[in-house]
Amino acid sequence: MKTLIVHAHPEPQSLNSSLKDLAVTTLEAAGHEVRVSDLYAMGWKATVDASDYGAAASSPLRIARDSGRALDAGTLAPEVRAEQEKLLWADTVILQFPLWWYSMPAILKGWVDRVFSFGFAYGVGEHSDTKYGERFGEGTLAGRRALLSVTVGGPEAQYSARGINGPIDDLLFPIQHGILYYPGLDVLPPFVLYSTDRLTEEAYPDVAKAWQERLLTLDSTEPIAFRRQNFGDYEIPSLQLKDGLEPAGRTGFGLHVRG
Amino acid sequence: MKTLIVHAHPEPQSLNSSLKDLAVTTLEAAGHEVRVSDLYAMGWKATVDASDYGAAASSPLRIARDSGRALDAGTLAPEVRAEQEKLLWADTVILQFPLWWYSMPAILKGWVDRVFSFGFAYGVGEHSDTKYGERFGEGTLAGRRALLSVTVGGPEAQYSARGINGPIDDLLFPIQHGILYYPGLDVLPPFVLYSTDRLTEEAYPDVAKAWQERLLTLDSTEPIAFRRQNFGDYEIPSLQLKDGLEPAGRTGFGLHVRG
Repeated sequence: MKTLIVHAHPEPQSLNSSLKDLAVTTLEAAGHEVRVSDLYAMGWKATVDASDYGAAASSPLRIARDSGRALDAGTLAPEVRAEQEKLLWADTVILQFPLWWYSMPAILKGWVDRVFSFGFAYGVGEHSDTKYGERFGEGTLAGRRALLSVTVGGPEAQYSARGINGPIDDLLFPIQHGILYYPGLDVLPPFVLYSTDRLTEEAYPDVAKAWQERLLTLDSTEPIAFRRQNFGDYEIPSLQLKDGLEPAGRTGFGLHVRG
Repeated sequence: MKTLIVHAHPEPQSLNSSLKDLAVTTLEAAGHEVRVSDLYAMGWKATVDASDYGAAASSPLRIARDSGRALDAGTLAPEVRAEQEKLLWADTVILQFPLWWYSMPAILKGWVDRVFSFGFAYGVGEHSDTKYGERFGEGTLAGRRALLSVTVGGPEAQYSARGINGPIDDLLFPIQHGILYYPGLDVLPPFVLYSTDRLTEEAYPDVAKAWQERLLTLDSTEPIAFRRQNFGDYEIPSLQLKDGLEPAGRTGFGLHVRG
């Protein structure tokens, strides 16, 4: 495997950094290649602006159009191009982050906002009667796999089916389906640690063992069965799920998972 | 009304900036006070790090604890304190942003990550047999109202109940419930514009009129009926919704809305 780990925590001695370090050593010891984008250590700029597009930036700035032009012209900011190259190099992408306010930290969202440019992660493929671009199961990153490794401060019950925060699968859907599956990545079930605000040093070895087991079985882990866009499940161009495909009673985000 | 508008778009000539400007002039013409946090114009730092906490930052950095200490000691970064003061000044908070990758732009997430510190937006109130802190309907910002004004590039059908992106209410739930309702804000139904990638100049007057109508009726708009945490609907401390409270067949995020 060739694994890219995108890491989003400011403290090198944090749980997230320990999990990132453990992933590197575990995968390398098993003979895999690993590259790390440690966003805080890189001083990653989180905000999209005209400086991302070089000479392709127009005035007024139009983000979709200008990012696509910059991709074509090779004038995307060098650090953005470097991340795109890492994504194309990898067959496996791990995002390591703490859940802050029910989503990813801003620095990681800024990695997505900047690196997932038009023509690279969206705006890919043609539109026709049977196809609405290449996305959700097709796209630039098709054939690769992704995994979220997420630390959650609060207890698991609060993220369960009836928990006040909402089910963790639904909270992660905009990331797993909307960000990762959109440009073609297959998404493995997430590795989620709960109650990390109270994690003790004594409990860490069990956490580490569970993470290593996940890392060493990535090859044989089945991805989440998100529905592919262009293969008959959706009306074109409304992209509404055709009637009757889902199990009785299923609604919301769950509609977009098969079976 | 005293309205704080938090604005997150880099281009002053964008649709989002036009909507922000229109909100200012419309509300002021109606006799209301308005303050604007134009995050790009302010050069807002999107990333949480030790510099946010001044002398209260410990090594290793622990974000919840250190941000709480910095709040108590008055050593939060001046721009963070200024935003907290604006939130306490306002009775109405509008977040104006484009939906990027199914969530808010990184610069706005970074406003949340930094301004919603421990002791201000979370870690508020005591825990007991009947209470699990003050959040979800109670908290520092209780009695105030919030509204999302969101531009969406794609068409509405793709964000409908069966649309491939998932229902817009579910995509916005982590923001509306998890970020805004959590520290006590009542959340009004969002103002969402679709297909903004194709919005023409000719169509803008209708958009502007709809936005003005929403702005001038905020006082009489009913908030989303999210369930309050500490008033009998949830088990304490698991915070799972008690059985039988929801309409038949409702699941997921919808459980946390009454009726």
